[in-house]
Amino acid sequence: MAAVKVYGMPLSSCTARVLTCLIEKGVEYELIPLNLAVGEHKQPGYLAKQPFGQIPVLEDGDLTLFESRAIAKYVAYKYKDQGTDLLRHENAKESALVVVWTEVESQQYNPPISTLVYELLIKGMYGMTTDQAVVDAQSEKLGKVLDVYEARLTESKYLAGNSYSLADQNHIPYTYFLMKTPAASLINSRPHVKAWWEEISSRPSFQKVLANAANA
Amino acid sequence: MAAVKVYGMPLSSCTARVLTCLIEKGVEYELIPLNLAVGEHKQPGYLAKQPFGQIPVLEDGDLTLFESRAIAKYVAYKYKDQGTDLLRHENAKESALVVVWTEVESQQYNPPISTLVYELLIKGMYGMTTDQAVVDAQSEKLGKVLDVYEARLTESKYLAGNSYSLADQNHIPYTYFLMKTPAASLINSRPHVKAWWEEISSRPSFQKVLANAANA
Repeated sequence: MAAVKVYGMPLSSCTARVLTCLIEKGVEYELIPLNLAVGEHKQPGYLAKQPFGQIPVLEDGDLTLFESRAIAKYVAYKYKDQGTDLLRHENAKESALVVVWTEVESQQYNPPISTLVYELLIKGMYGMTTDQAVVDAQSEKLGKVLDVYEARLTESKYLAGNSYSLADQNHIPYTYFLMKTPAASLINSRPHVKAWWEEISSRPSFQKVLANAANA
Repeated sequence: MAAVKVYGMPLSSCTARVLTCLIEKGVEYELIPLNLAVGEHKQPGYLAKQPFGQIPVLEDGDLTLFESRAIAKYVAYKYKDQGTDLLRHENAKESALVVVWTEVESQQYNPPISTLVYELLIKGMYGMTTDQAVVDAQSEKLGKVLDVYEARLTESKYLAGNSYSLADQNHIPYTYFLMKTPAASLINSRPHVKAWWEEISSRPSFQKVLANAANA
């Protein structure tokens, strides 16, 4: 029996964030796919686990957790002594910088990139029209964030220092989808950001998430 | 000499989040006020500390940290054995729920409330016009989040359980400003949310932040 259960969709950004973390930490899990098209995430049984009606949820014994970044932190902390050391927990300075750059992803990077992926990729899937004014504004915003990343990644190989951490990892799912849109140029035009992206996205953990989704 | 230095403005939401946390943990600090009106946060010396040109920054020895929620987590963790136990670190279940509800504040609560405070309070200070369509949409969004909070606070006194934690505390600064606008009705119309707000905002830590700002 798997240690934990994950309710979600294998290739949704937030589910992929959690699955990548579980694989990186070597934690066995069982994925319970939800069919969002028929509203399984809005049924009372699921809302009792996740009151906002969103995916994913992680169940670990009698604990029910949500918010993908919270789940990733929980997994990284609970299993801190196995798998990749995502928190750099034995180095006071690096661990503090992991906290900082994990929050940068959440507050600075995620708002523009999630809006761009919605406008340039998701809307098309549902026959909706991209709002170019929103794309332009959010591209400019993300570009400014990536200018800071480019400078940072000139100083250190990864965001929090010279080791891969949760701060890098949380960026993977949305950036993967951005790279399927014309806004990929925001990444490709910045050489250190591009090299960082190619490195973190080619890790076996995320590649396994993609392969599992393709085979689902 | 104070243990840590904080660069910021005493009553900006994000600076107040950090100061409330430092006081709650009993950590001495020195506040170094920045004059944003003359662009002190966009000068090279400050940008070397905070590459996004935002406040606050916390300096602790040779560590320079930013993002108010990251700083609050760092302070709560570093000083976990003094002051209020904001992380519930000796209780595996409660500490996991602190992580979840801290992230709920960041992802669900902050986007609509920060937009409402900007539209209803900040714009007026600068002679700009409130966009009522934005206010209506974000009020509806925040209302749905607060419906979940109301149900949650019927089950437990605080968001992560029956003890005050970082999850509650991070809500204080923006809610304080929301209560000065007509959108205060979103809080006041939900009895458990209202009682929770009155309790957390009356804690001596935040009252001291307000008093210090008034005397600055």
